[in-house]
Amino acid sequence: MCRRCSSTRGGAGVAQRNPDRGGPLGGGSAGREALSGGAGGREAPGARAAGLEALGAGAPGGGVPSGGAEDLARYLRAQATDFLRALRRHRESGVEDAPAPAMALRRTARRISGTLHTFRPLLDASWSDELRTELAWLSGTLAREHAYAERLERLLTALQRLAGSTAPVPAQASASPTGQLTVGAAKAGALLDRQLTLARTRAHSTALQALGSSRFHAVADGVAVLASDVPLRKDASAHRLAPFAADVEARLTDAVRALPLVRAGHPYNAEALVHGLSSDTAPESQDAPWHQVRLLLRLHRYAQEALGVRDFDPHLVAASHALDRHRDAAEAAAAASSAARTPRIAPATAYALGVLHADQRHEVEASRFAFKGAWQRAGSASAVSLS
Amino acid sequence: MCRRCSSTRGGAGVAQRNPDRGGPLGGGSAGREALSGGAGGREAPGARAAGLEALGAGAPGGGVPSGGAEDLARYLRAQATDFLRALRRHRESGVEDAPAPAMALRRTARRISGTLHTFRPLLDASWSDELRTELAWLSGTLAREHAYAERLERLLTALQRLAGSTAPVPAQASASPTGQLTVGAAKAGALLDRQLTLARTRAHSTALQALGSSRFHAVADGVAVLASDVPLRKDASAHRLAPFAADVEARLTDAVRALPLVRAGHPYNAEALVHGLSSDTAPESQDAPWHQVRLLLRLHRYAQEALGVRDFDPHLVAASHALDRHRDAAEAAAAASSAARTPRIAPATAYALGVLHADQRHEVEASRFAFKGAWQRAGSASAVSLS
Repeated sequence: MCRRCSSTRGGAGVAQRNPDRGGPLGGGSAGREALSGGAGGREAPGARAAGLEALGAGAPGGGVPSGGAEDLARYLRAQATDFLRALRRHRESGVEDAPAPAMALRRTARRISGTLHTFRPLLDASWSDELRTELAWLSGTLAREHAYAERLERLLTALQRLAGSTAPVPAQASASPTGQLTVGAAKAGALLDRQLTLARTRAHSTALQALGSSRFHAVADGVAVLASDVPLRKDASAHRLAPFAADVEARLTDAVRALPLVRAGHPYNAEALVHGLSSDTAPESQDAPWHQVRLLLRLHRYAQEALGVRDFDPHLVAASHALDRHRDAAEAAAAASSAARTPRIAPATAYALGVLHADQRHEVEASRFAFKGAWQRAGSASAVSLS
Repeated sequence: MCRRCSSTRGGAGVAQRNPDRGGPLGGGSAGREALSGGAGGREAPGARAAGLEALGAGAPGGGVPSGGAEDLARYLRAQATDFLRALRRHRESGVEDAPAPAMALRRTARRISGTLHTFRPLLDASWSDELRTELAWLSGTLAREHAYAERLERLLTALQRLAGSTAPVPAQASASPTGQLTVGAAKAGALLDRQLTLARTRAHSTALQALGSSRFHAVADGVAVLASDVPLRKDASAHRLAPFAADVEARLTDAVRALPLVRAGHPYNAEALVHGLSSDTAPESQDAPWHQVRLLLRLHRYAQEALGVRDFDPHLVAASHALDRHRDAAEAAAAASSAARTPRIAPATAYALGVLHADQRHEVEASRFAFKGAWQRAGSASAVSLS
């Protein structure tokens, strides 16, 4: 299981296409009803509220309820119901401009996918593997548009900061190449705006296409099945959930132990910029273990949610945010260096992109430093709050 | 006096030309003898050894000897003797290749200049102001060649590091544009090599010219006077040295208090790169207070030496080194961005120079962080060791 996760197969929100799209998820009628706001969908909110009450009763003060497949089923039903509700809101609000429902869709898709992964031995294996893969595809597809928009905003904000401007980033920073930016910085901003806006537009079309595809309808059907009747294995009730959650936590701890934390704890170690000017893909290989820990930390969080732990260690939340920033900065740095390879750009533009790349790589380093601090503070706290 | 120092007038090794080069320093014969290894020069080593013994006897265990003009005269004589000895060694070893004597010349010139500044009220004012200005000119002129060489080495080492190479920097890194560097990094290295080698060669010629000039002979004469007979004021013996040294320390403390130390103490504050892409000279104005503290810290050290304190607080030494690195990194960053403004360079070269600039500005930030730590550790220790 550890091996499987370290290659990020499905499980933790990594987009992956499954060549075999038929199978157990295809074309159930219950799902269609849920999609169109039918009986399954309407019943769900109440069911979820009941489920949460049950969770609350079972776990006073954030404790762990007595393990069992019933808790797992309850959690999955609640998430599936949230997914279907977000989907309905998304349809109602018009597909063009609905960031909140889209975010809720991604959020619940990640939780369902992660939970199916962690507690796989308790579930119908082939059915849940199938749904998990498809949910990963969906959340990956939906996330991309948002990611490009965020990346552009991050880079334009950084350009403003590098120019010493305290003014907020204008919506069209690149449209006014005068102001406080040098010509190079303004041109770099315009170039990034062009490239990332194009990428975002494409991602938007892809997401729209995905949401209208039969592949997506099959996913929604699968989630609708989950909302009403979680396909547990016959012997599932004999198991407690805690050992599976502990397994995830152990994998997380192992992965963190393999990180160069001592080095990351020394500020200004200049590690993140090593290979910044080498031609190979060294930065990616340097970042990969951190990205992996980010996914495992998320998996750990979802497993704790399934267990009924409601107060996830705030230090771990901080650690998780640090790794989100790590990922964002790493991708922004890559976008800057990729933009610098655009043919026929002016040297001043390339220079600004170089400064921007290095700035974002230092943000990567700063995030590692922040992660180390948060992780250490979490140390004892998490040992107490978890069984 | 404080105002005077904050504009770095002479005092602490800042090169400054004095339009009025005649005056009391001009053409004494004692200096000429010292220069050519005459009587004044030969007598000096013994005199200095005696002086050091006297210092040692007066200040057992690094304590402060009883204040007085005699200590000041002894310190200045010893430094002047060292200066003349370094000058002789420099002549003997051939002017072309003598880094050690040149360094000793700068070292003693800075000490004499700083001491004349700190204890100015005890000395013949116009004479010592004159010599101080001329010593600042000399040490500035001599320092430049070395500075360009160091800057080039720093930048080429950084380029290697950014390319992820652990191999030592080859003497002619730029001559082999293949290897582990990308084309852009190799071209950036070659460009910097060309520009800084040219600057170094020019600085070398200027230094040679300076060492052969009548202006320099006048300086050497002035120092030779100092080596035999320090021109103290008549009432000098009525004063203790400690109050003047304490004044320097107070100015240092004030200048440090004005630094943004809280911000500098937060790692990865991204302060040093603010204005990195603005067109004005904002980085210089941001760095200036730190450079000023660097000079005051040096002045403080020399004042302590004159007082006979032999164990200068190692934390202050570390703080001083941090500010040296701060200055070096700031100037290297400026050299990288200046090279990026070379007409008709390739975008890849400009990109590499941008990364390099940002890297060196982060080194600036790291140096501030290091200074803050060292200064805080020095806090109590220096309060104990100083009177």
